[in-house]
Amino acid sequence: MSDVLEKTEETEGDAFDDLYGLTKETVAAVEAALEEGAGPETIRPLVVPLHAADLADLLERLTKDERLSVVHALGEELDSDVFAYLDDTVQETITDALPNSVLSTFVQDLDSDDVVDFLEDMDEEDQKEILSFVPAEDRALYEQALSYPEYTAGRLMRRETVTIPEFWTVGQTIDFMRDSDGEGGSDLPDDFYNIIVVSPNHKPVGLVQLSKLLRTKRIVPVSAIMETDPKLIPVDLDQEDAAFLFRQYGLVEAPVIDESGRLVGVLTIDDIVDVMDEEHEDDMLKLGGVSEDDFYSDFLKTTRLRFSWLLVNLGTAIVASLVIALFETALSKVVALAVLMPIVASMGGNAGTQTLTVAVRALATNELTTRNALRILTKEVLVGSANGILFAIIMGIVAWLWFSDPVLGGVIATAMILNLMIAGLSGVLIPLAIEKIGQDPAIASTVFLTTITDVVGFFVFLGLASVVLM
Amino acid sequence: MSDVLEKTEETEGDAFDDLYGLTKETVAAVEAALEEGAGPETIRPLVVPLHAADLADLLERLTKDERLSVVHALGEELDSDVFAYLDDTVQETITDALPNSVLSTFVQDLDSDDVVDFLEDMDEEDQKEILSFVPAEDRALYEQALSYPEYTAGRLMRRETVTIPEFWTVGQTIDFMRDSDGEGGSDLPDDFYNIIVVSPNHKPVGLVQLSKLLRTKRIVPVSAIMETDPKLIPVDLDQEDAAFLFRQYGLVEAPVIDESGRLVGVLTIDDIVDVMDEEHEDDMLKLGGVSEDDFYSDFLKTTRLRFSWLLVNLGTAIVASLVIALFETALSKVVALAVLMPIVASMGGNAGTQTLTVAVRALATNELTTRNALRILTKEVLVGSANGILFAIIMGIVAWLWFSDPVLGGVIATAMILNLMIAGLSGVLIPLAIEKIGQDPAIASTVFLTTITDVVGFFVFLGLASVVLM
Repeated sequence: MSDVLEKTEETEGDAFDDLYGLTKETVAAVEAALEEGAGPETIRPLVVPLHAADLADLLERLTKDERLSVVHALGEELDSDVFAYLDDTVQETITDALPNSVLSTFVQDLDSDDVVDFLEDMDEEDQKEILSFVPAEDRALYEQALSYPEYTAGRLMRRETVTIPEFWTVGQTIDFMRDSDGEGGSDLPDDFYNIIVVSPNHKPVGLVQLSKLLRTKRIVPVSAIMETDPKLIPVDLDQEDAAFLFRQYGLVEAPVIDESGRLVGVLTIDDIVDVMDEEHEDDMLKLGGVSEDDFYSDFLKTTRLRFSWLLVNLGTAIVASLVIALFETALSKVVALAVLMPIVASMGGNAGTQTLTVAVRALATNELTTRNALRILTKEVLVGSANGILFAIIMGIVAWLWFSDPVLGGVIATAMILNLMIAGLSGVLIPLAIEKIGQDPAIASTVFLTTITDVVGFFVFLGLASVVLM
Repeated sequence: MSDVLEKTEETEGDAFDDLYGLTKETVAAVEAALEEGAGPETIRPLVVPLHAADLADLLERLTKDERLSVVHALGEELDSDVFAYLDDTVQETITDALPNSVLSTFVQDLDSDDVVDFLEDMDEEDQKEILSFVPAEDRALYEQALSYPEYTAGRLMRRETVTIPEFWTVGQTIDFMRDSDGEGGSDLPDDFYNIIVVSPNHKPVGLVQLSKLLRTKRIVPVSAIMETDPKLIPVDLDQEDAAFLFRQYGLVEAPVIDESGRLVGVLTIDDIVDVMDEEHEDDMLKLGGVSEDDFYSDFLKTTRLRFSWLLVNLGTAIVASLVIALFETALSKVVALAVLMPIVASMGGNAGTQTLTVAVRALATNELTTRNALRILTKEVLVGSANGILFAIIMGIVAWLWFSDPVLGGVIATAMILNLMIAGLSGVLIPLAIEKIGQDPAIASTVFLTTITDVVGFFVFLGLASVVLM
C-alpha cells in the first residue's frame, strides 16, 4: 500500500508528509471505509477536518462512484471551496450528480472569482438555473463576469475591491477599515495586500501597501505613501499576458480597469499561479502531442483525444515511407541500408527536438524574438553541424566496421552532418513561423520537425547511397 | 524590425505593449546607440528609467559586448535589483567582467534572499572576496544562508522577519511598526503580508494577516485574530515541495523554522513563483532531451550539453538497428518491409510519448501515485489497444492497397496493435519506475520509451513478416 509520495517522504525525513494535509493514512482509511460500504457517520469524521485543497485531492484520487459517496456523506458539510481546487473533469462528475438547487448553495459561499470558475464549464441552461437561486444583485455580478471572454483578466479577477479617496489620511483609512468590519455585511474581501486609491470617477490613481500603511503615522495623507504608477490590467487582457506581468514585476495584486479606465476588480497572485500552472501544463502536453489534460478523462474520451494527433503522425510517417520507396532498388541490393537508415532519421529527430524545446520555451517567455532570431538560428545551425560532425565520425566508423564497407561509412557520415544541420535550422524556424501566423508553437511544431528530419534523413542517406554504392 | 511581441500586440490592441516596460522602441534605440559606438551620456538616459526586470530583459537580448557597454555606461547607476532578474548565464558574463570590489556594492543593496541568489553560482574564492567588503554582521548572515544546501527553503528564504510577542494588542503592534520605521536602521523588510507571532523562545505560534490587523480595534489582543496553525516550512525542505505547499494552500508568505522549531526566515510567493517557473522549465526541457537551459549559453557549451543526450540516443538507435539486422533475409526479399517498418516504430513512439507526457506531468503534481497506478495503467493499455485497432485497420488497408498484398496488410495491422499496447504500458511504467528509484522521471523516460517502441515495433513487424511471408 505504499505510494510514490511515501518514497519522497522517506528520503526527506517526513518533513513534507507532516505539511501535506492529505496523509496516506487518511486516504487508506477513506478507501477502506468506502470498500466496506460504511455510512456517512464513518466517512464524515475522516474528511471534514481536511483543508478544501486536500479534500479536492482526495476526491480526484477516488473512482467516480467513491467520489459521489463521499460527497453524499458530507451533504451540507461539503466545503464549497473544494470546487476552487478541483480538476474540471472531476468537478463535472460531481456537479452532474447534484441538483442545481444544491449547486446554487455552493455558489453563494464562494468568492466571486471562484464562482466564475465554478460556472464557466457548465452549459448555459445549468448556469441560468443555478443563478436563478442566487440573490439578484449577486446574479448580475456573476453574469457580467461570465460575459468577459474566457482566458481574460475579466474572467479571472476578484470583483470585491478595497478603495479609498485620494484626500484621506492614514488614520481615516484605518478607521474606515475597522468600521467596515462590523457585523452584517462587510464588503471587504477576506484577505488583501494593497488598498487602491481612486479618483472621484473611480479610476485607480495609486496603490498603498498595507505594510507601508501600518508603518506610517495617522496624520500622513495616503497620497504621500502610495505607489503612484501601478500596473493597471485591462479587463480584456489575455490571462497569459497578465501572468507574464505578475512574474516580470513581482506583483501580488493588480487593479483591473475597463475601457474607460475605471476600476472593475483585482487580480491576485493565487489566481495567477493557477494560470502559470495551466500554461506550463499546456506547453508540456502539447509538445508531447496531447491536446488537453486527459488524466481524469475516461477511456473513450482519452482515445478520441489522442487519435487525431496520431492520425496526423500517421500521415507524416507515410510521407517518410514514400521517400524510402523511391529507393527500392538500392534497398533490395544493399540490405545494410535498411538496417542503418532509422539511425540517421532518429538522430535528426532528437537533435531537432532539443533545439525545438529550447525555442518553444524561449518564445513562451518572450526571450526569443525575430530581433535575436538570426543570432539564435546561427548558433543552432553551428551546434547542429558540430554535433553532426562528431556523430558522423562515430557512426561512420561503426558502419564501416559493422558492414566492412568504408564507403557506406562515408555515406552515413555525410547524411548525419546534413540532417543534424537541417534539424538545428528547423528547430528554430518552425516554432518561429507558427508563432508568426498567430498559432501556438507548442502544438504543431513537433510533427513538422520530425517530418522534415525523417524525409531529409532518409532522402540524403538513401539517395547518396544510390549514387555512390550502385 | 518587427518582432514576435509586435504580433501579439497587434491582435490585442497594444494593451500588453503599454504594460510591458521594455518597448521595442527602447530596444531599437539602445541597439542603434551601441552600433554607433555612442558614449554613456547617450545610453544612460535610455536605460535608467527602466524597471530592473526590464533592464534585465534588455541585457539578456544584447550580445555579450553590447551588454558590457551598457553596464559600463551605467556605472554606479546600475540598479542592483537587476541581478535578481537576470538569467544565470547572462549574469556570469557581467560579473566576470567587473571587479569584486564593485560587485560587493551590489550585494549591500540587495535583499538577503537575492544576495544568496547572486552569490551562489560564483566560485568560492570570489564569494569570499566579495563578502570581505561587506560589513561583518551581514557577512555572517549571507555565509549562513549559503551554508544551507542548494534548492532548499533555507537558500530561498528572506531572513528579515516581522515578529511580535503573543501578549501584544493590535494597538501595540501598530505602534511598534510605526516606531520601527524611523530613520537610521529599520529592520523591517520592504513589503510583507503577515506578522509572525512568536513565543519567548522565538518559535512561531501564529500569523496575523495585515488586512485583518487593520480591520481590528486597537485593544484586541493579536492572539484573538491570529491564524493559530500556520504551515511552517522546515529550513531544509526541498524548494519544489515548498512550491507545492504554496500552490496547494494558496500561501503568499510562510515562516521558515530550523530543526528546533525556531523562526529563521520567511518564504515569499515571488521566490516561489520563480521556483515553479524553474521546475516547469526543467520538466519541459528534460522531456525534450535538454539537460539545462542553454538559450544563453555559447555555441561550444551548448554543443557539449546536447552531445551526451544524443550519444545515449545513438546507442538506442543502434540497438534498434541490431533488431532490424536480425531480419536481413526477409528485408532483402521483400523490400516493402523496409518501406513500412518505420511507420510501426514511429506510431508506437508517438502514442507512447502521449502517455508518458501525461504520466510525467501527473507525477510532478502528485496526482499519479502507486495507489491509482493500476487504474491509470489499465486505462492507458486500453487506450493504446483501441487506437492500435483503429490504426491497424487504416494502415492494414493502406499497406494492402499500396503493395497489393493482403497478408502484408495483416502483418502491419498486428504489429500496430501490439506496439501501441506496449507503448501505453511503457508510457506509465517507465516514469513510475524511474520515480520509484528516486530519479527525475522527466529526464530519462523518453529514451527508454522510444527504445522499447522501436525494438518492439521492428521486431514484431519484421519477425511476423519473416514467419508469414517467407
